[in-house]
Amino acid sequence: MKISASVIARLPRYYRFFSDLSENGVTRISSNELAEMMGLTASKIRQDLNCFGGFGHQGYGYNPVQLCEQLRDILALPSKRKAILIGAGNLGRAVTNQIAFADNGFDLIGIFDSDPMFKGMKIKDIPIMSDDVIPKFCIDNNPEMAVLCLTESKAPEMVDLLYSLGIRGFWNFSHFDIKRKYPDAIVENVHLSDSVMLLSYKMIKKKDEET
Amino acid sequence: MKISASVIARLPRYYRFFSDLSENGVTRISSNELAEMMGLTASKIRQDLNCFGGFGHQGYGYNPVQLCEQLRDILALPSKRKAILIGAGNLGRAVTNQIAFADNGFDLIGIFDSDPMFKGMKIKDIPIMSDDVIPKFCIDNNPEMAVLCLTESKAPEMVDLLYSLGIRGFWNFSHFDIKRKYPDAIVENVHLSDSVMLLSYKMIKKKDEET
Repeated sequence: MKISASVIARLPRYYRFFSDLSENGVTRISSNELAEMMGLTASKIRQDLNCFGGFGHQGYGYNPVQLCEQLRDILALPSKRKAILIGAGNLGRAVTNQIAFADNGFDLIGIFDSDPMFKGMKIKDIPIMSDDVIPKFCIDNNPEMAVLCLTESKAPEMVDLLYSLGIRGFWNFSHFDIKRKYPDAIVENVHLSDSVMLLSYKMIKKKDEET
Repeated sequence: MKISASVIARLPRYYRFFSDLSENGVTRISSNELAEMMGLTASKIRQDLNCFGGFGHQGYGYNPVQLCEQLRDILALPSKRKAILIGAGNLGRAVTNQIAFADNGFDLIGIFDSDPMFKGMKIKDIPIMSDDVIPKFCIDNNPEMAVLCLTESKAPEMVDLLYSLGIRGFWNFSHFDIKRKYPDAIVENVHLSDSVMLLSYKMIKKKDEET
């Protein structure tokens, strides 16, 4: 069965809610209760979760513990594909905290930065290395994914290098459009500036409506 | 005219592309060229931009410089609504860099953290203060927006406080669901963990398809 992109995009959100519920000892929840919590309709929730093979039990509802495990498998969270991170600045550090401590499908094995001030330092026990050693490191370790926490101007050249070294997955915080150059790359873009601009727009809109 | 949420969500992206183009001295671009660059269809682009009042000129195309200025106004980027940031860790620092240096509709006027180790420090010339002084600071300065770079467990209490102090806009990096408790709040959520989980899913899916 082909699952729509919009359903897939909601999976991590389901996973978050089910994790919270099961951590809080909830062993049973109805689609109506879920709907209220998640701000979706109950029928949408049943539809979404059905895409992944009838998780619910008629008259019982959903078991968050079980769903959590199933979603973990679907999202491939227990798998530990090797990842590297480019850019050891504040954003790189924040993302390292994010990626190094949770099951999210990846194992961060190296951090790279062109700035010599980082030489010899570690973040969460992961060594920061110079950009120069990226080729050797990738040949030796075969990472599959790279997190890009570098400025847009440096991104094109870095992506060329990483792609040539076999990396196909990118968690991209730069604004460089990777898929345009490499259509077979698998990319998740995070555009923080887009998000804050949207907030600005919504706030001004609301003010206009009120006046 | 009521503009759909999906069009609005694309505005920052248009703004980014038009900024780049005008910075690169491009004074004229067709919807077909834009479509190729942005990975959208030309008719979608014409439709989107028409929502904001016929920017294009038949037979000429679009003027990025002009569009950029119009989108700046639409997104209220030149306005400087006061914002505060909660959480001076790596994520808070990264976000400060993001928000303090660009026109994005906000002016970051204070950073707060409960950890005394930050006391007396500054990020980008903005003082880090103790959480205790948030009420006084807000009463004196009337910020309209708060960036939440704190853990989910601390978020509910902080949101209660900020809401009670009149803040209605939230750029939310915690997973706490603000809109559920305060439906009239204006919220942009950034779920970094959702993004990396989706990447994991897409990478495993691709692998499945190839084998």
